[in-house]
Amino acid sequence: MARIAVVAGDGIGPEVVAQARKVLDAVLPGVQATEYDLGAARWHRTGEVLPDSVLAELAGHDAILLGAVGDPTVPPGVLERGLLLKLRFAFDQYVNLRPSRLWPGVAGPLGSVKPGEVDLVVVREGTEGLYAGAGGSLHRDTPAEVATEESLNTRHGVERVIRDAFARAGRRERRKVTLVHKTNVLTHAGSLWARTFDAVAAEHPDVATEYQHVDAAAMFLVTQPQRYDVVVTDNLFGDILTDIAAAVTGGIGLAASGCINPEGAYPSMFEPVHGSAPDIAGQGVADPVAAVLSAALLLEQLGHAEAAARVNAAVAAELASRTPGVTLRTEEVGDRLAAHSAA
Amino acid sequence: MARIAVVAGDGIGPEVVAQARKVLDAVLPGVQATEYDLGAARWHRTGEVLPDSVLAELAGHDAILLGAVGDPTVPPGVLERGLLLKLRFAFDQYVNLRPSRLWPGVAGPLGSVKPGEVDLVVVREGTEGLYAGAGGSLHRDTPAEVATEESLNTRHGVERVIRDAFARAGRRERRKVTLVHKTNVLTHAGSLWARTFDAVAAEHPDVATEYQHVDAAAMFLVTQPQRYDVVVTDNLFGDILTDIAAAVTGGIGLAASGCINPEGAYPSMFEPVHGSAPDIAGQGVADPVAAVLSAALLLEQLGHAEAAARVNAAVAAELASRTPGVTLRTEEVGDRLAAHSAA
Ligand SMILES: CC(C)[C@H](C(=O)O)[C@@H](O)C(=O)O
Ligand SMILES: CC(C)[C@H](C(=O)O)[C@@H](O)C(=O)O
Repeated sequence: MARIAVVAGDGIGPEVVAQARKVLDAVLPGVQATEYDLGAARWHRTGEVLPDSVLAELAGHDAILLGAVGDPTVPPGVLERGLLLKLRFAFDQYVNLRPSRLWPGVAGPLGSVKPGEVDLVVVREGTEGLYAGAGGSLHRDTPAEVATEESLNTRHGVERVIRDAFARAGRRERRKVTLVHKTNVLTHAGSLWARTFDAVAAEHPDVATEYQHVDAAAMFLVTQPQRYDVVVTDNLFGDILTDIAAAVTGGIGLAASGCINPEGAYPSMFEPVHGSAPDIAGQGVADPVAAVLSAALLLEQLGHAEAAARVNAAVAAELASRTPGVTLRTEEVGDRLAAHSAA
Repeated sequence: MARIAVVAGDGIGPEVVAQARKVLDAVLPGVQATEYDLGAARWHRTGEVLPDSVLAELAGHDAILLGAVGDPTVPPGVLERGLLLKLRFAFDQYVNLRPSRLWPGVAGPLGSVKPGEVDLVVVREGTEGLYAGAGGSLHRDTPAEVATEESLNTRHGVERVIRDAFARAGRRERRKVTLVHKTNVLTHAGSLWARTFDAVAAEHPDVATEYQHVDAAAMFLVTQPQRYDVVVTDNLFGDILTDIAAAVTGGIGLAASGCINPEGAYPSMFEPVHGSAPDIAGQGVADPVAAVLSAALLLEQLGHAEAAARVNAAVAAELASRTPGVTLRTEEVGDRLAAHSAA
């Protein structure tokens, strides 16, 4: 029986996670969920972000379902570095998976793109690059201040995420992988990424490949998002590109993500891309679709592909039936999705 | 009399620069232009990218007008680092200015945004960050390879570009500056940028301010580009964001840029954001508007605001009169823009 750690978090986190749990219970009866109180509220109350004992307990689960953490009252970096990134790094979640689909019924912002035409997945590296935390500053608060941030990239880290991207592409219809980097400026890391990409590509003659600079990819995600199938890129570029991909497919209210340790040595973590949205928290109007789609990614990762497909079908039906302009109720959407998924 | 160095470059570069020169001649009779042969063609012929003697000659001009350099046959980085970035750094062009307007008559990709509603300018830092060229690799081509890229940020460099952004905002109608960074992950550089921004903002109580993480800004540029007035950001974030801004305002075919040394200690450089587009080179169908708008930025920088305004008005008339789907002729567009600008 799957053992899931649930970190509902702050703001709308608990509201949307409650719906994702309804859906999980509906498709996988008997799933064991344990709640963990982490996030801005706990930090304010106790000063703790992620105690070692909690980290150790989390490690004993099959997966983590996370709502959203954060609040404007917490200084930048505290929860991001201390909780989200800490988990990604501690659990070696090197595949940060972010699918984007323009679902039928969803009005995207692009006039020329029709629903159903966009179906891409970004495989974002999750444990290296500028997220490594290497950097510092000197002469702080003086005119001589200098601050650095260092992007660290290893063949080990780059190769494994590129392999994952090719494996995913091989299971998809279009079988295409786009490498995004900035090889013309970041020549050292760019060369490592490009050479590794070429080496892995040579083992996958059935997968088509292309390379784009990150600025060009950011542009093409707006003008021709249809062209992408699997995109593989580094941690920071992936952060930016996935928000663009979310924007052109109806917004981060619909965007799911998984921080995956493919080998299963550690639990993978699934979370909506949106934040805690304190402005609408407590009103019961947050869209739980991103959290529910994240639960579907969780199901897939744990080997329940059929259950995941039912959840995705329920989401498709939900989105196709929505009337633009009508305020949704979080609970009602969750009930509908759970009922439909169970069927 | 203004002395302009012209680097027409490769691909469509010479075609579009010829139109920009027509326009300059029309509004500023007697401008002295000297051609410099730099780019992929010269590199193939001689192996030279930017000889010191040419750099010294360029330094003696009031401004540089550049078409486009590059070609798929040149290895990545050679011309970018050796020519474009070399000039930006050697001439201390710390303000990389990239305005984006959705011109009346231009069909942007966003269904909800009406022409005239978007009018923003990105002030991208041009001499620091990940473009500093600090980085390296070890154990290349072995499983132990590691590659680094370092972002270098100084109070000196950050403060001067933020000051420029506030000065520009003070001259604009909406008087708003948005700082874009990633302070929650890049905590050292992010803190330097944020503290410097706050200090400069305190001197400009008449200018409204906001902060956004780069991923959020990438998303909002797609969903609500209208919200931005002046955006100030670091070198790499600026590279990405300006391509998104170009995409939502009709594409890089219309996007102009200036690499500016505001003090005039060195020449500033003006170039369309688009590349050399080898696929359409030599056909006489490239849109020269981006090059002409870059010439308008050049005129402004050299103190010819009235001439710049006439060029902008000519571009506005040109774009408003275009029939969608009709192939344009580079020469004819240039002729029309020159005639209209002169009037
Ligand atoms: C909150 C932040 C640390 C995080 C990131 O930058 O990865 C977020 O933007 C995301 O994309 O999950
Ligand atoms: C060609 C490249 C070095 C350059 C950059 O990254 O700055 C280009 O993308 C630009 O935006 O001018």
